[in-house]
Amino acid sequence: MNRPLDETWFTEVFDSQGSAFSLKVNEKLLDVQSPYQHLEVYATQTFGNLMVLDGCVMLTDRDNFLYHEMIAHPALFTHQNPRRVVIIGGGDCGTLKEVLRHPGVEKVTQIDIDEEVTKAAERFFPALTESNDDPRAELLFADGVKWVDEADDASIDVLIIDSTDPVGPAEGLFKTDFLKRCHRILKPGGVMVQQSESPLYHSGSIIRELRRDMQAAGFDSVATLPFPQPVYPSGWWSVTLAGKDCDVCDFREQAAAESAMALLYYTPEAHRGALTLPPFMRQAFDV
Amino acid sequence: MNRPLDETWFTEVFDSQGSAFSLKVNEKLLDVQSPYQHLEVYATQTFGNLMVLDGCVMLTDRDNFLYHEMIAHPALFTHQNPRRVVIIGGGDCGTLKEVLRHPGVEKVTQIDIDEEVTKAAERFFPALTESNDDPRAELLFADGVKWVDEADDASIDVLIIDSTDPVGPAEGLFKTDFLKRCHRILKPGGVMVQQSESPLYHSGSIIRELRRDMQAAGFDSVATLPFPQPVYPSGWWSVTLAGKDCDVCDFREQAAAESAMALLYYTPEAHRGALTLPPFMRQAFDV
Repeated sequence: MNRPLDETWFTEVFDSQGSAFSLKVNEKLLDVQSPYQHLEVYATQTFGNLMVLDGCVMLTDRDNFLYHEMIAHPALFTHQNPRRVVIIGGGDCGTLKEVLRHPGVEKVTQIDIDEEVTKAAERFFPALTESNDDPRAELLFADGVKWVDEADDASIDVLIIDSTDPVGPAEGLFKTDFLKRCHRILKPGGVMVQQSESPLYHSGSIIRELRRDMQAAGFDSVATLPFPQPVYPSGWWSVTLAGKDCDVCDFREQAAAESAMALLYYTPEAHRGALTLPPFMRQAFDV
Repeated sequence: MNRPLDETWFTEVFDSQGSAFSLKVNEKLLDVQSPYQHLEVYATQTFGNLMVLDGCVMLTDRDNFLYHEMIAHPALFTHQNPRRVVIIGGGDCGTLKEVLRHPGVEKVTQIDIDEEVTKAAERFFPALTESNDDPRAELLFADGVKWVDEADDASIDVLIIDSTDPVGPAEGLFKTDFLKRCHRILKPGGVMVQQSESPLYHSGSIIRELRRDMQAAGFDSVATLPFPQPVYPSGWWSVTLAGKDCDVCDFREQAAAESAMALLYYTPEAHRGALTLPPFMRQAFDV
């Protein structure tokens, strides 16, 4: 039914695309202005808890499994033997948890600039932080761009950019210069993955530019994988993978099929299907 | 940004799931009370024209290709040689247009109860109705349930139920008794496909029940295919296929790959990928 939404709803308006998504809320659980961003947590009626940063929906209990599985597992199953993993952003720790499901991973460092996000996740999204005590996990609260600058050449297997949108604190994570530095710290055969916005809204803009910038930064192969994400603008989202001396259009399908992980969305068949882009995206990318 | 939405937005509130989706509108183009439903058309800011029935978003110019391709092509490429096709509902004619892309199809009959929908499509969504003059197309404005009742046994190759939600005029299209009649009029090797709501919202309810009802109605195989649909509740939608003496979990992949249709979303790889359900859906279906 068409009716105005009152203050019992949280609404994210996506002005540039003239759309908005709303969740009915029972109460606001947290409202903090950190040094970096405005952080809110709401209890919703049907999506569990909801985290919001600077007015943008970050995640809900109900559907975060889609994003977290799709930013972690395609990259991990594309790398031939991922042992050293770095996450830039990802303060809610949901990506970290997915990465740690891979038994071959020896160390994961998560670098988020804002400790308040992780504190809020521990308190209001305990399922996401349940692997934080894993001895392979290292949580740093620092500037991810600076951390990448100071990392050794060819020292990382998989680099995950689990950032907010390319405005505000995360703007620097979408620049060619940063992508070149990411390329530098990856080992040969290394895989980078970045959240890359909506296939419907951004195929001809942000995603297309990210793919070109990745290639300009020296990556040999690029693959954009679309997946559903109901609480993000358009309900449809993507990650873009880039390979250093490797082909991110192929992956360890057999290993993925034999994995004993209890996932909710990712399957090797979905991964294979996502690797073939819808024609409208191919046209937008000019590939 | 979180802010109340004023009257410059069209909002569909999905009360049972505590979510809402809104599009910024420039003007209302049509407001008609037909004998069956309340029909509105809006000009939106970024999604082109928007059709609304009884307050529920039916389609927009911008993203209807997803739904129309996915309700038509998986079913048509699953049937071994589809020649006689029937569409129940589908008054906007977008499904008809997709079906007519298949050169082997000899006749398509579309039966929608509400002629006002087709009139509005011709006026405000001309791209969808551009195949209506195809000599293979027959448009009837009548009760689809009654039409199915009166159709000959084993006379149809592909039966497409392109209905509104299972409330209001379309309620009868989601009942076991109707599915039995659908089974009766399909030839051996026949394929039925029905729009089946949101994977996130309805896997454990409407979709699960539809699948069981299809099996109870005599169908040998059932397959639910999820796909993105930004303007429908949750931004994620599904169709469910059922086969009479055939396996809808397989399809003419080679024919789909060699097809010269200029589609925007459907690919045989996406079809193959969608046939493997996300684990959370398999769990909900108990398969």
